[in-house]
Amino acid sequence: MPDHRTNRPKSGPGSPGKPGQTREQRERRERFERARRDSLRPGSDDVVVLYGLHAVKAALGNPARRIRRLLATENAVHRLGESGLSLPVTPELVRPEAIEALVGPEAVHQGLLAEADPLESPAIEDLAPMGLLLVLDQITDPHNVGAILRSAAAFGVEAVVTTARHSPEMTGVLAKAASAALEYVPIVTVPNLARALRVLKDKDVFVVGLDSTGETDLATMPLRAPLALVLGAEGKGLRQLTRTTCDAVARLDLPGRVKSLNVSNATALALYVASTRIGQG
Amino acid sequence: MPDHRTNRPKSGPGSPGKPGQTREQRERRERFERARRDSLRPGSDDVVVLYGLHAVKAALGNPARRIRRLLATENAVHRLGESGLSLPVTPELVRPEAIEALVGPEAVHQGLLAEADPLESPAIEDLAPMGLLLVLDQITDPHNVGAILRSAAAFGVEAVVTTARHSPEMTGVLAKAASAALEYVPIVTVPNLARALRVLKDKDVFVVGLDSTGETDLATMPLRAPLALVLGAEGKGLRQLTRTTCDAVARLDLPGRVKSLNVSNATALALYVASTRIGQG
Repeated sequence: MPDHRTNRPKSGPGSPGKPGQTREQRERRERFERARRDSLRPGSDDVVVLYGLHAVKAALGNPARRIRRLLATENAVHRLGESGLSLPVTPELVRPEAIEALVGPEAVHQGLLAEADPLESPAIEDLAPMGLLLVLDQITDPHNVGAILRSAAAFGVEAVVTTARHSPEMTGVLAKAASAALEYVPIVTVPNLARALRVLKDKDVFVVGLDSTGETDLATMPLRAPLALVLGAEGKGLRQLTRTTCDAVARLDLPGRVKSLNVSNATALALYVASTRIGQG
Repeated sequence: MPDHRTNRPKSGPGSPGKPGQTREQRERRERFERARRDSLRPGSDDVVVLYGLHAVKAALGNPARRIRRLLATENAVHRLGESGLSLPVTPELVRPEAIEALVGPEAVHQGLLAEADPLESPAIEDLAPMGLLLVLDQITDPHNVGAILRSAAAFGVEAVVTTARHSPEMTGVLAKAASAALEYVPIVTVPNLARALRVLKDKDVFVVGLDSTGETDLATMPLRAPLALVLGAEGKGLRQLTRTTCDAVARLDLPGRVKSLNVSNATALALYVASTRIGQG
């Protein structure tokens, strides 16, 4: 699997256009892409807050993640020392209360907090899918999206595609719930999900939406790699245009009285079923 | 599957003791059980708060759930009317803000809130396991436990066993995250988990703990019904005595860089794997 950790857009004027595109079409697409990327590039004020041992250690170990500031308790500095990581910044020694004041009393910060730059979003055109992709259609709850990213990293998902709007920021509780996954799974942020799905289909990706009203069962339908699973928000489900852009819409059959799962639970299950069936599991 | 919805302890002086027990042993056990149940029986001040369409509708439809009070917006009353449920109490017509004031601005209450009595906890001795049971070893996060109960109901789990201490109350955000599951899955609250596991083993239940350090893979190890899956809290995992009381400790193999899942995600996956393999799925 290619190392996506640098998360830098690689396409540009030299990137291949679609076969049959005129020069004018290609130039228009390139202008659109530049504008899109500029709109997605974080401003200088954007800062990502990471806390907890897994999230911070993984960020410190990711060369593409620029750490601005590191707060650590004495215990945590000791722990980091034991892990043998070379620290990109000198940690500021603080008492646990100083971190609690920043993240709230409920947060399990384990004496570590980092402020960092966001990772850049690769362009959907630059993906070269081989295995499993995950697409999130306006799932907004940060705990759920964090748990989903964690599962994505656990199942070796190559990239997670999400919408620029109606998606939570990749920081704070989301980053904590994601464990180390933010540093491992490239997150592709797109302005238009249906267009992104069409780009994936042009790359020979089989695009399967998940919905309790799906016409076929994910566990028995024909599947093949590269495969993208598309999940919608709880309650709302997939948007109509998302749904009609999928190659197929599948359901997860449940034997009990409750007929739907929490969205992160459903995603974990879908990733398990799909990765087992396309031979990645 | 027997209807457990009444959730009433059924054992008593007439309940069969274990074969070979003396009368004195049986009487001692009955005294212990009475004291235990009294300690678990909610006081008159205990009230369960349920909100959201799924949770409240399911509670209204459960004859074992005593509803004390029902707050509903005009829209919600209309919706309930359409569902054809007969209401055990007259709803108090309120504006959405009145419910928001009780549950907070983040909560998706859908114009419905019920105050109810807790359901009584069946005794572990009264279970007659046939299929799948779920055991939670001090999982404290109410969102996670709610999502786990929802998955339990989705996979037809016969009962969820949980500890009286270090477990969240079956109310509020937990009940909301559980969707309708609180009304469908009997919850057995026990003072001592290792003892409860031994009771299950005496009932011929195969007890499998889940842990990332497990010696065998849940997806390939021999499994049979009745089966209990035992899950520990994130970070802490199974307690030592829980672990050694299990018949086996299994892991879920994950192909990616992150080697563990959110506990509710892990539970959903374990339920899927187990229910498929023992022929309940």
